[in-house]
Amino acid sequence: MTVNFTAFNSIASGGRRGRLDLSHRTVETPVFMPVGTAGTVKAVPQDILESLGAEIILGNTYHLYLRPGHEAIRRMGGLHRFISWPHAMLTDSGGFQVFSLSALRKISDEGVRFRSHLDGSSHVFTPEHSMDVQIALGADVIMAFDECTEYPADRARAEKSLRYTMGWARRSLDHFRAHRNEVPWFEESGGRTQSLLGIVQGGMYRDLRRESAERLVEMDFDGYAIGGLAVGEPREVTLEMIAGTLPLLPRDKPRYVMGVGYPDEIELYAKMGVDMMDCVLPTRAARHALLFTRDGRINIKNKQYAEDQGPPDPNCDCMVCRRYSRAYLRHLTTAGEALAATLNSIHNLAFYLGIMRRVRSELETAANAG
Amino acid sequence: MTVNFTAFNSIASGGRRGRLDLSHRTVETPVFMPVGTAGTVKAVPQDILESLGAEIILGNTYHLYLRPGHEAIRRMGGLHRFISWPHAMLTDSGGFQVFSLSALRKISDEGVRFRSHLDGSSHVFTPEHSMDVQIALGADVIMAFDECTEYPADRARAEKSLRYTMGWARRSLDHFRAHRNEVPWFEESGGRTQSLLGIVQGGMYRDLRRESAERLVEMDFDGYAIGGLAVGEPREVTLEMIAGTLPLLPRDKPRYVMGVGYPDEIELYAKMGVDMMDCVLPTRAARHALLFTRDGRINIKNKQYAEDQGPPDPNCDCMVCRRYSRAYLRHLTTAGEALAATLNSIHNLAFYLGIMRRVRSELETAANAG
Repeated sequence: MTVNFTAFNSIASGGRRGRLDLSHRTVETPVFMPVGTAGTVKAVPQDILESLGAEIILGNTYHLYLRPGHEAIRRMGGLHRFISWPHAMLTDSGGFQVFSLSALRKISDEGVRFRSHLDGSSHVFTPEHSMDVQIALGADVIMAFDECTEYPADRARAEKSLRYTMGWARRSLDHFRAHRNEVPWFEESGGRTQSLLGIVQGGMYRDLRRESAERLVEMDFDGYAIGGLAVGEPREVTLEMIAGTLPLLPRDKPRYVMGVGYPDEIELYAKMGVDMMDCVLPTRAARHALLFTRDGRINIKNKQYAEDQGPPDPNCDCMVCRRYSRAYLRHLTTAGEALAATLNSIHNLAFYLGIMRRVRSELETAANAG
Repeated sequence: MTVNFTAFNSIASGGRRGRLDLSHRTVETPVFMPVGTAGTVKAVPQDILESLGAEIILGNTYHLYLRPGHEAIRRMGGLHRFISWPHAMLTDSGGFQVFSLSALRKISDEGVRFRSHLDGSSHVFTPEHSMDVQIALGADVIMAFDECTEYPADRARAEKSLRYTMGWARRSLDHFRAHRNEVPWFEESGGRTQSLLGIVQGGMYRDLRRESAERLVEMDFDGYAIGGLAVGEPREVTLEMIAGTLPLLPRDKPRYVMGVGYPDEIELYAKMGVDMMDCVLPTRAARHALLFTRDGRINIKNKQYAEDQGPPDPNCDCMVCRRYSRAYLRHLTTAGEALAATLNSIHNLAFYLGIMRRVRSELETAANAG
């Protein structure tokens, strides 16, 4: 089956309140998806993710392919069972990490040859292989294999990169359709399969983005992502690319902007009609002492918090803000204690998930009023 | 007030089921106390410690004195409030860490001059200063300042070391009695104070241990610890020292063996009449991939667990064993993920706390039957 997406409320700016009916869970949209790179949202136990209301998390195909290996995960019933996350999951295609983490990349129409950042071993990812790996992992939503065009990229480079991505999108889709019944939980789910999303690329060129979107829509994916953003371009360019691309994507399918963003960005994009977003920012920033609060970002290591007995964010009622003080989080962070990463990450995720909960509520209210 | 200890059930081997009435909590004994060095049981959030049934945890005076500083903690109302642990706590005297972690120690009758392992700054710990710091931290149970005699130590060295410890015990007690009302929570607790325990030293010499115990008992502490064990001596020597010392300690006061031990040891000592024990082993081993199970220790990194979907310990019903597989813990540990330390530590603590729960129950049954 393909993804069942219902957009049941829309506002003038394009934002819509919706619902994704996935094999392992119904997900309320717009949704922010915490990133669980190697089968774990770093430093946060699964039961806490559940209590924070996370409905869908990411896994990274590149990392899981290298360790513990997709065949091992397939033999254990898929990623959901392996990491004990019985809710929704999404895997990326592996492309982004191949380009950002691995060494000695050699790209061709066929795919990418690269060396592992772990042990230097040589590997090849093709669209077909990315699909095989993602089918073995068995996330509910998987992504077409693409090349994330770097920034800045001149037009010739962006065109060439897009040519790879478009050819690989077609091959990803064909291979997925031929093999989707091989997902580890096919039988136990009564014959459900994964959903495959295509990825719009094209650098920062609006006409290339248009061409990319139109060709992908012709191929008829289960949904569409906008990739290659938040790679160093100015924020207004990110916004321009999203604003230019969203109207080209079908309204009855989910729309996903990959790898964004700051709290104000995810709110803005959600209100423009983006249904799904993911970003390492809340958890990565947390591991670097940066906390998001209603009053802005704070570096919890700052000396001013040394004896501050107030909660990290006075407007937050997450389990961290209810129990611990800024002084304690500063102490843990300064001392390099493992609990710092855990508590800081929990708060930042609660903050991000709380924004989306509020946005969903606002979309309902605005649409009902309109 | 002094510690209120009730030993309400004893068995022939000396083991007794008891209860410690402390300022912040009643603690069922025999008890195992997880070690929370720098104000955190490494990698484990406080609410999980509560759900595991931990009734009392340790803090290390040396670490907290250096960072964030005992005066800061005093100003914030004491360690309980600072780390949000409203239950019982114990702090050591700082002596052990001064001797094991700091540099350029210079010992005299007065006390110890040392350099911080963090920044090389120079500090002096005397018995009076250790008491001041521990009163500022405000743990329910605090320890006399002592020198932990190294192993091996010849008789002359053990005698000299014991002379320091005995002189410091007297001064610790006098200073504590003069200043105990300065504990940060004195008023709010209705005038309760901390309990001070003396520490038996004497190396591996039974007569020195006897001399140490007898002199401490004369001083009339709130309870007695046996220190200077598990410092490298053979296990049978540890046992001999404990067996030789316990009968010299009053039956109506708590008896604490510091820094032990393996699971079979804590069970054995508890059945011999030791009421309190602490050890970094369950958490430190966890961070090094070592899990304790009913069937013995396992190194979760071993390849044999790569696709083992069974729980870490099939006989354990802790939150980790109920949810996660050996394969997943192996993956997290191998990948160096933060969640590995958290989950491995939770299981090992559950294992240790479970042993003591069972021992308490067995002591009740045996005493009732006897």
